[in-house]
Amino acid sequence: MVKLKGFQKLTSTDDALNKWLGVLKIKKPSAVNVPLSEALNRVLAEDVITEESLPRFDRSAVDGYALNSENTSGASQFKPALLKLTESNIVGAKQAKQVWTGTPIPKGADAVVMIENTQKRDEEIEVWVQLAPGDNVSKKGEDIKKGETAIKAGTRLNPYHLGLLAALGKNQVLVTKKPRIAIIATGNELADVGNKPAGNQIHESNRTMLSAMCHELNAEPADLGIAKDDLDEIVEKIRKGLTNADAVITTGGTSVGGLDLVPDAVNKLGKPGIIVHGVAMRPGMPTALAVLEGKPVMVLSGNPVAAVVGFEVFARPLICRMLGMDKEEYRTAVKATMTRRVSTALGRKTFVRVKAFEKNGEVFAEPVSARGSGAISTMTRGNGFVVVPENREGVAEGELVTVRLFGSVEMDREDV
Amino acid sequence: MVKLKGFQKLTSTDDALNKWLGVLKIKKPSAVNVPLSEALNRVLAEDVITEESLPRFDRSAVDGYALNSENTSGASQFKPALLKLTESNIVGAKQAKQVWTGTPIPKGADAVVMIENTQKRDEEIEVWVQLAPGDNVSKKGEDIKKGETAIKAGTRLNPYHLGLLAALGKNQVLVTKKPRIAIIATGNELADVGNKPAGNQIHESNRTMLSAMCHELNAEPADLGIAKDDLDEIVEKIRKGLTNADAVITTGGTSVGGLDLVPDAVNKLGKPGIIVHGVAMRPGMPTALAVLEGKPVMVLSGNPVAAVVGFEVFARPLICRMLGMDKEEYRTAVKATMTRRVSTALGRKTFVRVKAFEKNGEVFAEPVSARGSGAISTMTRGNGFVVVPENREGVAEGELVTVRLFGSVEMDREDV
Repeated sequence: MVKLKGFQKLTSTDDALNKWLGVLKIKKPSAVNVPLSEALNRVLAEDVITEESLPRFDRSAVDGYALNSENTSGASQFKPALLKLTESNIVGAKQAKQVWTGTPIPKGADAVVMIENTQKRDEEIEVWVQLAPGDNVSKKGEDIKKGETAIKAGTRLNPYHLGLLAALGKNQVLVTKKPRIAIIATGNELADVGNKPAGNQIHESNRTMLSAMCHELNAEPADLGIAKDDLDEIVEKIRKGLTNADAVITTGGTSVGGLDLVPDAVNKLGKPGIIVHGVAMRPGMPTALAVLEGKPVMVLSGNPVAAVVGFEVFARPLICRMLGMDKEEYRTAVKATMTRRVSTALGRKTFVRVKAFEKNGEVFAEPVSARGSGAISTMTRGNGFVVVPENREGVAEGELVTVRLFGSVEMDREDV
Repeated sequence: MVKLKGFQKLTSTDDALNKWLGVLKIKKPSAVNVPLSEALNRVLAEDVITEESLPRFDRSAVDGYALNSENTSGASQFKPALLKLTESNIVGAKQAKQVWTGTPIPKGADAVVMIENTQKRDEEIEVWVQLAPGDNVSKKGEDIKKGETAIKAGTRLNPYHLGLLAALGKNQVLVTKKPRIAIIATGNELADVGNKPAGNQIHESNRTMLSAMCHELNAEPADLGIAKDDLDEIVEKIRKGLTNADAVITTGGTSVGGLDLVPDAVNKLGKPGIIVHGVAMRPGMPTALAVLEGKPVMVLSGNPVAAVVGFEVFARPLICRMLGMDKEEYRTAVKATMTRRVSTALGRKTFVRVKAFEKNGEVFAEPVSARGSGAISTMTRGNGFVVVPENREGVAEGELVTVRLFGSVEMDREDV
C-alpha cells in the first residue's frame, strides 16, 4: 500500500540551501591545464598575474607621425609646423617619423599626430594641430601593468578573457575541473524518449533538460537512465551515481502523496542522508536535499517545470561553487512591467514564467499561463522567471518586477 | 614604399551590412539530424509539428482524489461530502479514487480534490471543498495540441526546447549545419601565443577571441594562423580559407595608413571582391566587407577591440543568417544610467565599453576608460557596449542608455 505523508513543515529556499551547503562543506575543486582554444566558459582556478606590462612598450595609438610635441607649439591649419621626415630610429628636433597603430614610439618623440591632421610635402610634413606630450601614444602598461592581477580566480572565461590571456603570451590556462553530475529519473509512468509509451506512460524529458542545464554551466552530466518505482532499483542507481560522479540529481518519487521511494532510498544509503525535505516554493515543494559520502544529492520533483526550478534554486548555486566560484553566477535580469495580475500562495516562493518583451522602449512581462505547472511549453514560450517572495500573494498588473532571463529579449535596436 | 590612402567616404554600419548581404544572397543552410543530447544551442532547421497532444490524456495536476464534482456540491469543512474510495477504473456516484500528479483521470470523474482538502476515514474520505468540473485536471492537449507548431524553424534550442522535444517523443532533431569560419591574422608584428615575441612584436590575440566568439554562436572556427605582411602569403591563406570554410575573417593590414595589403589580396582573388571599405564606426573604421566565390569575407582591423566590434557588427548578423535564423540574435540589453559623460565623434557609430552594475535597485553604466582603443582590458573589465549613434557627439552623465551585454550584471536578488 502507498505511504501517505505530509510535510511537517516547509523550509524556505534560502534556509534549505544554507543548511545543505553547511553540511556539505564543498572542497576547493581540483585544477587542470587546458589550451586557450578549449578554455571558453571554463572557470579560472588561480589568479592570473601579469608578468609583462601590456603594451610592452610605448606605442602609437593611431596612424600618423611620431614627433616631439614642443615642435608643434602654436601650429594650426593656417600656420602649420613644418617637420622633416626621417627614417632614423631617433627623431631629432624638427623631425617626424611615420608610424602606424601599434608601432613603437621612436626615441626623441613624445607624441603622434594623426595622418588626417597633416599634409605631406615631399620630404616634409605640415602639421596642422598643436600636440601635448603623450598625445596619441599608448603608454607601456596602459592596458595592464606588470604584477597586476589580469583575471581573478573564479572568473568564468569569456572570449575577451581568452584574448587577454593570449596577449599576455599564455597559451595554457589553469581551470577548475568540471564537476560530474549523475542524473536519474524515477517513475513507472516514464518511457524513454526513443521508445513508444505504453498506455498511461509519458515520455521522460527531465534528464534531457537537466543534462543541458549542466552543459550550460559547463558541468558534465552523466545520464544514468530511468529507474522504476522500486526501492532496490533506485538505491542501486543512486549508489552508481555516487561512485561515478561528484553529485547526484534524481527526479520523481518525492511527492507528498505519491510513491515516495527516493527519500527512503537515499536514507538507506548512509548518513547524514536527507537534510531537508519539503521546500516553501512553487513549483517544487516536494524537493529534498541530501548528503551521502560527502557528496550532494538533490531529490527533485518529477514535474518537469518543478525539476527545472529545483535545479535553478539548488543545483545552480551548488555547481557554481563546485566550479570554484565564490558565489552563484546569476542570470541576467531586466526590470519589466507586469501586463496582468498573477496570484501566488502566501508562504511559498513562486516562480512565475513570463515572456519579457519590449514595446516602445519599455519592457513588459507577460505571464505564460498554463493550468498544469508541469507544462514545459510555459518554459519554451517564456524567456524568464518572475520570482514572487514568500511574503507576497502575487504581483499586480502594472507592477515593476525583476525578470531573471533564461532566454533573450528582443530589445529595441535604437541605441542610447 | 608604403601606400597611403584615405577613405573617399565612410559607409554607415547599416548600409555596409545591407549592401554586403545584398550581394551575398545567403543560401538556406543544409540540415543535419542530431540526437537531443547534442542539440543544445543548435538552430532548428524545420518547424516541429506536434504529432500527439501533450498531455496525451486528461491527467491529475495534483495529488489527491478523482471524483465527480457534482458530488461535492455545498461541501465545506463543517459540512464535508462523504465519498467511498474505489480501486475500480470507473468512478461511480459518491465514489472517489486516489490519484497522483500525472495519473490519468479515471472514467466517471471530472475533477480532483487536493489531498490537503480531505480527511481519510477507513474506506471513505471527507471532502472539505466544493469543486467545479475540470478543477485540478490537466486536460489533454493543454500543454500543446496535436498539429500545433511546437518550435519554429530558426529557433536556437535551449534546455527547455530539448525537454519539449523529448516530451513529444523526438530523440533526434533536424538542425542547421554549423557554418565553418576561417580566421587569419596578418602582420609582421605578431608573435603566436606560444612563441616569445621578438623586439617590437606583440602576442597575437585576435584569432583566440574571434574563434571563441564563433563558438559562442555555435559556428565552427578554423584557425589558419598568422600571415606576414606579404601579398602572396595573404592571398594563399585567404584562398585556403575559401576552399575549406564557408566564410573568411582576416584581421590587420586594412588600416588607412598601414601596410594595406589585405584588400588588395582580396581583390586579386576574384570578383566582386571588396564591396565596402571604410565604415563609419569607432573602433573599426578600416573594416572591409567582400564576397569571393559567393562566400563572405570580412577584413577586420588588427586592433583587438576593433576586431571584436567588427565581428559584432558584421560577423554576428552574418552567422545568425548562415545558421538559418531569419534575423540577428541580439544580445540581451539593459537600460542603465551613465555615471559620467563620454564624448564621441559625430558621424561615427561609437561602441563605448561600459561596466553595468546595480546599486540600490538602479542600474548604472560606468565607462571603462583606456586611451588605446586596442586595450583588451576594456573588454575584460566591462560587461557591455553602449552604442552611440552617428548623429550624436556623446552621452551625458545621468543619461539613460541601453547597454548590450556581453557579460553578466550582478543584479539585486531581492525579487519583485
